[in-house]
Amino acid sequence: MARIIRASVAQACTAKFSLNETLDKLERLTRVARDRDGSQLCVFPEAFIGGYPKNSTFGAVVGDRALAGRDEFARYYAAAIDIPSPAISRMEAVSRETGVFLVVGVIERDGGTLYCTVVFVDPVEGYIGKHRKLMPTGSERLIWGQGDGSTLPVPEKDFGSAERPLKAKMSATICWENYMPLLRTYYYSQGTQLYCAPTVDARPEWQSTMQHIALEGRCFVLAACQFAQAKDYPDEHFTTTNLSNEGIPDPEKVMIAGGSVIISPLGKILAGPLRDAEDVLTADLDLDDIARGKFDMDVVGHYARNDVFKLSVNAPHT
Amino acid sequence: MARIIRASVAQACTAKFSLNETLDKLERLTRVARDRDGSQLCVFPEAFIGGYPKNSTFGAVVGDRALAGRDEFARYYAAAIDIPSPAISRMEAVSRETGVFLVVGVIERDGGTLYCTVVFVDPVEGYIGKHRKLMPTGSERLIWGQGDGSTLPVPEKDFGSAERPLKAKMSATICWENYMPLLRTYYYSQGTQLYCAPTVDARPEWQSTMQHIALEGRCFVLAACQFAQAKDYPDEHFTTTNLSNEGIPDPEKVMIAGGSVIISPLGKILAGPLRDAEDVLTADLDLDDIARGKFDMDVVGHYARNDVFKLSVNAPHT
Amino acid sequence: MARIIRASVAQACTAKFSLNETLDKLERLTRVARDRDGSQLCVFPEAFIGGYPKNSTFGAVVGDRALAGRDEFARYYAAAIDIPSPAISRMEAVSRETGVFLVVGVIERDGGTLYCTVVFVDPVEGYIGKHRKLMPTGSERLIWGQGDGSTLPVPEKDFGSAERPLKAKMSATICWENYMPLLRTYYYSQGTQLYCAPTVDARPEWQSTMQHIALEGRCFVLAACQFAQAKDYPDEHFTTTNLSNEGIPDPEKVMIAGGSVIISPLGKILAGPLRDAEDVLTADLDLDDIARGKFDMDVVGHYARNDVFKLSVNAPHT
Amino acid sequence: MARIIRASVAQACTAKFSLNETLDKLERLTRVARDRDGSQLCVFPEAFIGGYPKNSTFGAVVGDRALAGRDEFARYYAAAIDIPSPAISRMEAVSRETGVFLVVGVIERDGGTLYCTVVFVDPVEGYIGKHRKLMPTGSERLIWGQGDGSTLPVPEKDFGSAERPLKAKMSATICWENYMPLLRTYYYSQGTQLYCAPTVDARPEWQSTMQHIALEGRCFVLAACQFAQAKDYPDEHFTTTNLSNEGIPDPEKVMIAGGSVIISPLGKILAGPLRDAEDVLTADLDLDDIARGKFDMDVVGHYARNDVFKLSVNAPHT
Amino acid sequence: MARIIRASVAQACTAKFSLNETLDKLERLTRVARDRDGSQLCVFPEAFIGGYPKNSTFGAVVGDRALAGRDEFARYYAAAIDIPSPAISRMEAVSRETGVFLVVGVIERDGGTLYCTVVFVDPVEGYIGKHRKLMPTGSERLIWGQGDGSTLPVPEKDFGSAERPLKAKMSATICWENYMPLLRTYYYSQGTQLYCAPTVDARPEWQSTMQHIALEGRCFVLAACQFAQAKDYPDEHFTTTNLSNEGIPDPEKVMIAGGSVIISPLGKILAGPLRDAEDVLTADLDLDDIARGKFDMDVVGHYARNDVFKLSVNAPHT
Amino acid sequence: MARIIRASVAQACTAKFSLNETLDKLERLTRVARDRDGSQLCVFPEAFIGGYPKNSTFGAVVGDRALAGRDEFARYYAAAIDIPSPAISRMEAVSRETGVFLVVGVIERDGGTLYCTVVFVDPVEGYIGKHRKLMPTGSERLIWGQGDGSTLPVPEKDFGSAERPLKAKMSATICWENYMPLLRTYYYSQGTQLYCAPTVDARPEWQSTMQHIALEGRCFVLAACQFAQAKDYPDEHFTTTNLSNEGIPDPEKVMIAGGSVIISPLGKILAGPLRDAEDVLTADLDLDDIARGKFDMDVVGHYARNDVFKLSVNAPHT
Repeated sequence: MARIIRASVAQACTAKFSLNETLDKLERLTRVARDRDGSQLCVFPEAFIGGYPKNSTFGAVVGDRALAGRDEFARYYAAAIDIPSPAISRMEAVSRETGVFLVVGVIERDGGTLYCTVVFVDPVEGYIGKHRKLMPTGSERLIWGQGDGSTLPVPEKDFGSAERPLKAKMSATICWENYMPLLRTYYYSQGTQLYCAPTVDARPEWQSTMQHIALEGRCFVLAACQFAQAKDYPDEHFTTTNLSNEGIPDPEKVMIAGGSVIISPLGKILAGPLRDAEDVLTADLDLDDIARGKFDMDVVGHYARNDVFKLSVNAPHT
Repeated sequence: MARIIRASVAQACTAKFSLNETLDKLERLTRVARDRDGSQLCVFPEAFIGGYPKNSTFGAVVGDRALAGRDEFARYYAAAIDIPSPAISRMEAVSRETGVFLVVGVIERDGGTLYCTVVFVDPVEGYIGKHRKLMPTGSERLIWGQGDGSTLPVPEKDFGSAERPLKAKMSATICWENYMPLLRTYYYSQGTQLYCAPTVDARPEWQSTMQHIALEGRCFVLAACQFAQAKDYPDEHFTTTNLSNEGIPDPEKVMIAGGSVIISPLGKILAGPLRDAEDVLTADLDLDDIARGKFDMDVVGHYARNDVFKLSVNAPHT
Repeated sequence: MARIIRASVAQACTAKFSLNETLDKLERLTRVARDRDGSQLCVFPEAFIGGYPKNSTFGAVVGDRALAGRDEFARYYAAAIDIPSPAISRMEAVSRETGVFLVVGVIERDGGTLYCTVVFVDPVEGYIGKHRKLMPTGSERLIWGQGDGSTLPVPEKDFGSAERPLKAKMSATICWENYMPLLRTYYYSQGTQLYCAPTVDARPEWQSTMQHIALEGRCFVLAACQFAQAKDYPDEHFTTTNLSNEGIPDPEKVMIAGGSVIISPLGKILAGPLRDAEDVLTADLDLDDIARGKFDMDVVGHYARNDVFKLSVNAPHT
Repeated sequence: MARIIRASVAQACTAKFSLNETLDKLERLTRVARDRDGSQLCVFPEAFIGGYPKNSTFGAVVGDRALAGRDEFARYYAAAIDIPSPAISRMEAVSRETGVFLVVGVIERDGGTLYCTVVFVDPVEGYIGKHRKLMPTGSERLIWGQGDGSTLPVPEKDFGSAERPLKAKMSATICWENYMPLLRTYYYSQGTQLYCAPTVDARPEWQSTMQHIALEGRCFVLAACQFAQAKDYPDEHFTTTNLSNEGIPDPEKVMIAGGSVIISPLGKILAGPLRDAEDVLTADLDLDDIARGKFDMDVVGHYARNDVFKLSVNAPHT
Repeated sequence: MARIIRASVAQACTAKFSLNETLDKLERLTRVARDRDGSQLCVFPEAFIGGYPKNSTFGAVVGDRALAGRDEFARYYAAAIDIPSPAISRMEAVSRETGVFLVVGVIERDGGTLYCTVVFVDPVEGYIGKHRKLMPTGSERLIWGQGDGSTLPVPEKDFGSAERPLKAKMSATICWENYMPLLRTYYYSQGTQLYCAPTVDARPEWQSTMQHIALEGRCFVLAACQFAQAKDYPDEHFTTTNLSNEGIPDPEKVMIAGGSVIISPLGKILAGPLRDAEDVLTADLDLDDIARGKFDMDVVGHYARNDVFKLSVNAPHT
Repeated sequence: MARIIRASVAQACTAKFSLNETLDKLERLTRVARDRDGSQLCVFPEAFIGGYPKNSTFGAVVGDRALAGRDEFARYYAAAIDIPSPAISRMEAVSRETGVFLVVGVIERDGGTLYCTVVFVDPVEGYIGKHRKLMPTGSERLIWGQGDGSTLPVPEKDFGSAERPLKAKMSATICWENYMPLLRTYYYSQGTQLYCAPTVDARPEWQSTMQHIALEGRCFVLAACQFAQAKDYPDEHFTTTNLSNEGIPDPEKVMIAGGSVIISPLGKILAGPLRDAEDVLTADLDLDDIARGKFDMDVVGHYARNDVFKLSVNAPHT
């Protein structure tokens, strides 16, 4: 009898950086995953809560930061969430009510620093852990701090029942963290089976990395990218790239094009990639495909060379 | 003034496991790379010298080995080459006469064990190093030993002139070794720029791994796969998979379909992928693309998290 | 007063790869060793729990793996046991109830990789350690990973009483590991006295290796081989070698013929070799025979040449 | 076309410890190997030149040495040979005239110490090396010193012709040295193919060790044991063990019973074991059997675990 | 004010190879050294604990070992002590209670091999180190292994008080080790001041070696020899040398005649040599005599020729 | 048939530091050895030619040297001999005429430096080598330089005939050089059999060192000491120690008392020690005693521990 989990990824964006509206959106999409598709799990994109300030500079140049940029940061800071906080409670409620396990990209505020974080929310236990992005890319380094080894959880969730358990381990890797071979190796070594990859990278070649990871790690990859248009941003977030080809501000202009996808441990595309639209993608994940795949490739088991390569990980609280 | 190396990958197979004929083929293809395409470097596939016994079982089942399988191994063993040996000298002569740097997959014999090896042959210095595949895949484990940390060279070659040096570092990663994240990380850490990937994996999804590596490592990827038909195998290498769909032995039957490709450090396909034919692919490699790519992604530099992940490598003689 | 341990080896096989039935069999044979023969120790063969898929190919040929082979692996994977797990608890109960120390070959599941493992189970302390086979042989390399230096325990067990201690050190070496001279030397250096050798090698020449090891290591050798017939395998484990000489599927066909034996430190055969039957072999082991033997041969003591040969062992957690 | 060497072992003893008569015997037996059997190689037993003083005590007890024992040693010392010396020249002449490569056990004198040595004598190059026994056994420690890492040669000999080379590597391991696992491992690592084992151990269980080594090392084993009767010893070598069962000095009494044998790399007995007679044993050695055997077992190649076990050898001059 | 240590050597033997009785004897003699003579240090002979099986052959002749010899070895093996063990604890108690530093010859059991060892036991710190005899003599090679460079300690002991320290360095050299010039040189180079020489050599010429060493090393020599009669051996240790001149077993027959002695760094005999009796010898050792002696002779200092002779010592753990 | 050399040591002193008279004395004593005792070899004491300026200070104090001392040195310098020189020729003539091999202590002049040297003079080949004392003792350091590794010869001399060779190796060690364990070890390693020890040390305890060396090296020791009275010194060599007990200059006063001795390899005194007289001592040296002795002790062969102690010698021209 097949051991199958039904899982979704939501391709969507922040609602004009408004926390409440975005939480409403999260609830709505979670219900789509559940009611329409029968999902038990739903992954949301990077920075879904808090927002991804695409194309902003925050007024920074080498050697100087404009005051307007400081103001922009103050606004962005105010829109982030603490953990725990009412926003987390709201997500817990959504999960509890729908029975859908949530993996959600958020902007986390901790003291004076923001982090690009993913939270894991269980229908029964509520919030159970978070991962902070280890290394921001490019100008993200102006606004986000770096996570560390204390937030690399690989929680195990039983998606089955007492009579028929269906346990699976999950992890979260955000955007270009997916290029970090040592982080991936660590997650593989912890036994991740549902490799969640929230992102805002909508380049076509991103697909090759997602497919490669499924094959390399012999795990399911659930890649959730934002789909965002100019109109999805707050008004004060005006940049020249919002212009149409004719140079006119164009609210329909696509800012982040999507590309969400679900892939099997043998590299087979199960759903997506979805481009240029907001939607929920869903697929059946046959957990036995992992053993089928590890038969000839287990980079942290029979295919490792521990005598040649030794990876030490400083992950004290995980 | 652009700093460009012209480089090729040869998509071809062993000539019926005949050493001399295969060396002739190597010379012929090298001359194509040089005379037709003006190349300075040519990468040949995995096991090009010695042969890849596709679909053989060597008489092995769990718990037993048939005597015929031992005989098959003894023939395969006899067809392999020592390093050094006259076969290496012949490659040195080809390289010297054509001026083309060669990266060639060979089956290496060392004592009682065979290794799937890649040799580096310089037009001036001759043989300068080798890489032994670290972990054979599936049934390869029956016939090949495991390399270790002593054969992970990253040689540097000056493809320019005294007035205008054009140095580049090279590495070799064979077939599913390309799935080993720690091996790749090691090569990145040693500064590989021309990431050579000889293989016999002709699945379409192999392309995603090649493209991913270029993006992850910010290096040129030169992937050389075999193209082999049933008629390219020795007569005694008969297997049921040589049959046509009608069940008749079909000498034209494609055994390994190719898929050779050359990719830039930003993931752009420069040549190929070539399928279902023997040929030489060539591209211009602009070395400055590497710095362009490392600007925002250097997984062994500014994008690493050495405080969280530490990779120790036991590579004593490299 | 002689210092004697009574010890057994069980020659038997897995019950159609069924975990519960095989554990029942383990209990039954342990009770035979105890009730009929008065044994304090019983060694079971390689892969007794989990099964030895004799003559399977798992659909692997050089360069390819059939999907049916992946399915077979997934079934085999599901039949393996974690450590700890209820199966281990069951063995602990059998040992506790009978007072017999158990040395049992199992197929261990750890993440995506299977290992050919031996567990040591003490009547009082329960599970106390395991050894993972270091190097699978032939097609075993397709299904089992490699153990390493962290699972080379040499536990000491007191088979006597508080008033009259009777301590002995034990080790486990699985099948062709017995050909690894450096592994054996390591065990000798750790003082192994009861050298347990679970195997599925039933060739007559295996006896010479068992006798040689007793003489080389001046230790008792307890070699337990499987005895298995075609009918002992699950129905889906069908292979052409199950056929009778007339080419008809023959449930009585002997798949693994046994050859279990117990040998003294001076090379004397104490029990067996037993062939072509399931049974328990028992012998009295006079511990003073070890000193009698080491008198003129101690390859890790007075007969070593540490100035010429130095063995370094990477066994960090042992 | 098969690659076959014809090789012999001579089962014989020293002629009353007389150097000249023993050299005559060596010549006679070498001619038998050549003229009768067509051999290219002949192995002679341990201490063939110089003699094995079976059952002597040399007057030693713990804490004392009798003067008569010192005299016995002085005689034994005088009967040993230097290297080089006229005795070596004589062996070179025998080898040159017959074309038979000789591997001969001798007692070597070097300064004040005797060594149990084996010399390699080539028909063309003459004496090419020697091995000194590393660890004398039991009372041998009273009369022989210990060799060291400087005399562990593994010479390669071409038994073929310029048109058709037939190279093979040889080693010598004397008597209970064959129980030293690290010495054997070293020889395997150097590629020994003709593993010569001169001995005086005539116990039946010695056969298991010879067969085991062939299987472990995947090499041909050429075991040459002495056959000696009381009458073969000098008159002053009188010991109570020379007596018949009736207690009468019995010149026919068997002192060393033989057991010479030739075994293939897969453990097959090719000639012998010969007991209770002097003779020459001969067999055809198919060198391709080594590759057939290494297919599934190469303890210094694909079957080694260099990450777990590292053998360092102090063999400076080899 | 003179810097004087009062030191003793005990001339005695093992009590019929009985461990407990011999430990009682050790305690009794230590109390004599302390109560009668006021000693701070007491040296006991070679093999005092465990016994010296004078005149035994252990059934060994060249090429054979009798079974009765193996039994004898097994008994001797059983009588030896592990380190640590209750016997060591008993010595620690004796030292602690009497305040006498002990240097005691023991037979040490380690795995399958026995060593002729000397232990250093401090009144406060207990057991602090051991030296294993490097090279057994004659028939000792049948029963004892060889120590190595890891057990060459030169511990320093303060025989004074906090207000008035009186530190001295000690070493142990057993019996004919005293003939090893390189070992002695090593000890001199480590600064030994109290050169302890436990032995069983009772020849008169032994005195010359003891005196020579004091002069050569400019150190105090404390030579402790056994005094043993036939009656001191276990009954099963019967040898023909136990006979009186009339050929009758004579329990009074002297087996080891003693010769213990204490000598100053300038070769002056301070106490002894004592022959043909059991007793304790005591002398005052004026530490300043060492400097007096080194004024004109320091073979590891101003009298060395390091440009001509270089001694390398492999003593890793010392 | 015994292999015996007859050898002598001459106990005598320099004739008032007169070269010619001393050479006359050398001839006279050599003829005594030959004509009276039938010797083939004669050893003369340290500084026999040139003189040993017993009790001189050469006017040296710390920080100053008196002019009279410089004059004394000039005289002493003038009395020394060059090598070669007429004095050497004279010795060659004596040796040739008598057939006695000479080992003679001389004061050698080389440029501005004097050395305490021993020369070897062969009846047939004449002067064949020399040894310079490596380390002068005490005030000798004011007048003699240090030899080095280039003058450590161990010449071999055939004392037999063409039909019956009787080869023996010799060495020379001067006075307290005999305390240098590494120098002795080197000589042993070179195979010295006739260990010549010219000296001026007449203390009784010197005997223990001579006896020890014979036992340690298993060689014959030929110790030749001067016997000198006050009258044997030149008149200008006046010192207060020349006085009788009554304080009157006493020409009979014994300045160096002798103690020459010849000892066998097993420590047996063969001749001497001779005290308080000038004479020649002679003994028969049975060369087979060396093998008898090395039977149980060969500190550079079977009794060495080359794995623990390695002696490197810088002896380039020897």
